[in-house]
Amino acid sequence: MGSWIEVKDSSDFSLQNLPYGVFSTNGTDARIGVAIGDWVLDLKVLAEGGAFDDLEFDLETLKNTTLNAYAGLEKKVHQKVRQRLQKLLEKDTQLGHVLKENKPLHDKAFFPQSGVNMHLPMKIGNYTDFFVGLHHAKTVNTSLISASINQICPCFYNLPIAYNGRASSVVVSGTPFHRPRGQFPVDGEVISGPCRKLDIEVEFAAFIGRGNELGSPIDVNHAEDHIFGFVLLNDWSARDIQMYEATLMGPFNGKSFCTTISPWVVPLEALEPFRVAPKETPRKLPEYLTEKREKSAYDIPIRATLELNSEKYRVADCSTSNVIFSFAQMIAHHTSGGCPLRTGDLIATGTLSGPTREEAGCLLEQTRGGKEPFEMVAEDSSKGSVQRAFCEDNDTIIFAAHAKSNDGLGNVGFGTCQGKVLPAI
Amino acid sequence: MGSWIEVKDSSDFSLQNLPYGVFSTNGTDARIGVAIGDWVLDLKVLAEGGAFDDLEFDLETLKNTTLNAYAGLEKKVHQKVRQRLQKLLEKDTQLGHVLKENKPLHDKAFFPQSGVNMHLPMKIGNYTDFFVGLHHAKTVNTSLISASINQICPCFYNLPIAYNGRASSVVVSGTPFHRPRGQFPVDGEVISGPCRKLDIEVEFAAFIGRGNELGSPIDVNHAEDHIFGFVLLNDWSARDIQMYEATLMGPFNGKSFCTTISPWVVPLEALEPFRVAPKETPRKLPEYLTEKREKSAYDIPIRATLELNSEKYRVADCSTSNVIFSFAQMIAHHTSGGCPLRTGDLIATGTLSGPTREEAGCLLEQTRGGKEPFEMVAEDSSKGSVQRAFCEDNDTIIFAAHAKSNDGLGNVGFGTCQGKVLPAI
Repeated sequence: MGSWIEVKDSSDFSLQNLPYGVFSTNGTDARIGVAIGDWVLDLKVLAEGGAFDDLEFDLETLKNTTLNAYAGLEKKVHQKVRQRLQKLLEKDTQLGHVLKENKPLHDKAFFPQSGVNMHLPMKIGNYTDFFVGLHHAKTVNTSLISASINQICPCFYNLPIAYNGRASSVVVSGTPFHRPRGQFPVDGEVISGPCRKLDIEVEFAAFIGRGNELGSPIDVNHAEDHIFGFVLLNDWSARDIQMYEATLMGPFNGKSFCTTISPWVVPLEALEPFRVAPKETPRKLPEYLTEKREKSAYDIPIRATLELNSEKYRVADCSTSNVIFSFAQMIAHHTSGGCPLRTGDLIATGTLSGPTREEAGCLLEQTRGGKEPFEMVAEDSSKGSVQRAFCEDNDTIIFAAHAKSNDGLGNVGFGTCQGKVLPAI
Repeated sequence: MGSWIEVKDSSDFSLQNLPYGVFSTNGTDARIGVAIGDWVLDLKVLAEGGAFDDLEFDLETLKNTTLNAYAGLEKKVHQKVRQRLQKLLEKDTQLGHVLKENKPLHDKAFFPQSGVNMHLPMKIGNYTDFFVGLHHAKTVNTSLISASINQICPCFYNLPIAYNGRASSVVVSGTPFHRPRGQFPVDGEVISGPCRKLDIEVEFAAFIGRGNELGSPIDVNHAEDHIFGFVLLNDWSARDIQMYEATLMGPFNGKSFCTTISPWVVPLEALEPFRVAPKETPRKLPEYLTEKREKSAYDIPIRATLELNSEKYRVADCSTSNVIFSFAQMIAHHTSGGCPLRTGDLIATGTLSGPTREEAGCLLEQTRGGKEPFEMVAEDSSKGSVQRAFCEDNDTIIFAAHAKSNDGLGNVGFGTCQGKVLPAI
């Protein structure tokens, strides 16, 4: 299955992917598009041009400035639209010819990605950050967070641990932020000032499509029907602020100053070729967390890179497979007490560290709490390396994920999840 | 200052109050109203009738189905509208005569409270629950939450501790909910089933009016300009679920199944007569938490009542004065790292217990974790009492607050904050 649009092997955006985003060009309103190769295909233009007229759903949902209304439709609508888009973009199909040869529509509907601005794809009601990374829990929980905690939290294997994150500080890739100020102890005295232990967290996140009502839990075996798609997420963390404030009630200001997500929402269907089982399965779980499906997680490599003075340095190589619960289990647990999920809610995995230091998804782990700075090697090896204990001002951190298809369906990636640390105000 | 509408001494809704709510009558759309005596005054009707034409603000904001657009306007607009409403409702004023004598407008604009349905007043983006109750912290933190914590959290006096609550499960007074299910240990074994330690928390909460941008903290001495008004809040808590899940990341499913608020948003201006200083002040604080205003908290009594088979039993008498930080300080701390607050965000105090058992704002405190059931005495003393360790199915819990004015301005209350426990699904 190839497209009549050029899709390089290195591109994140093959016919197998077709992620949704919200974009604008100079001086125009934000609107919904789909990425293919180096292009954005404008779905509002397609919808107005009649491309979906026979698919029996509310076309107005594709003419909004966020994906929420469209994401809230039934899964089968998303599947029909995806099939239609594949047919429109595939070479040697009748529909493909129509879009390719209809010069006025073609010119109106395609924009080069290099020339568009990307916006937050969804209006985010609630952001939930889970803690289901196996190696992250082993490393952080047993030694780094608190001397008083010397073992993994007893409930870690029984349920997907989570806290409510701050939805209003979630930003789209490319948005810079200021180093946060806060209170924390230094040499035994509590001071108030700019964070000194600014960290990253490599995470993977799902956007909720259809929600549920208060008091109506979602069955684990139907939970995937409620996932619209996935993004990369950097859960920036001020470790000194977090560890001082969070002894009782969990993270608050330590994680509320910025959370960066990649702009393209990769559909659930696009990740089918990359399924794996969660770690430590099978194991005995309560019925509400017991899945019929074995391969309910994904194996997608995520690389974190530091960009500084136009040079790039490797920070870490993580994987979405380092989880002990699937998104279906997270959703089932989240709603098990009756909590309603809403369209546009964002659910993240927590840090996706692997077992080695090169696979640590946050600097807290990688540098042993800042005590052992890590040597980050330049992509261009002639440029040497830089050392980091935590993030410094003007550091840009970039996450990227590119999953290679083994069956010729086409590679799937997420674009970049990028943020720059500006000095404290 | 009296109204030409009858306002009994026992009424929550004097001319000094004039709280905003969203209501509907049978078969009509939800719209914005103000409570006065036993009546709701329809602000959409007033706006369409020209009552605010000279006040220079966007009248469309009063024609919505939530208060958000109106609450997001500048404080001075809310003050002008409040003054106009007081003049329209005051006896012996020219404007008062106009509204009273204009029979068609009068009949169209007033609805008896007993005949309307109340809705959530604001679309809530983020819900933040603080932990600034002095006596709650002393009791819970030192003995009940965990045997490993034998003192108040070190940061308790230095900053207002908080966690992100779940916005999607906040409901308006009168909405019943099902006892949540979850995982928790019983006799050393972790089970999955209906919560056995269902609790209440007596809280006071502020709705944010105008917000702030990412990276732009709100100055503590201007923070009240960002408060639209106040409600009562019951932060229902499943203690067994909470204590098992929350050792690391704070409360999650233990508090995400239902949070009840009273329907009327009492304006900041209405509470001026009830100002007091927060507890334990003055004390040394960082500059960003240092207030010029001394009386930045409020002294409003809140009573919690159990209703069962049409009888009412006294649960607890709390006060909004039992806090060690003001809302201005909570807002300043919340935004100090750069976190944006949005119009419609809800910020609560945490449990407002006083020092005695009769003033304990949650059953966890009142019954020593359920070990010493509390005798709740009937309002009608001939009806005896009931014992409770935690909430039982079909219990209705009602919070009410009625602040008596000493200077004749009129009493101020909040209506009721009421919820009923239905059996687990």
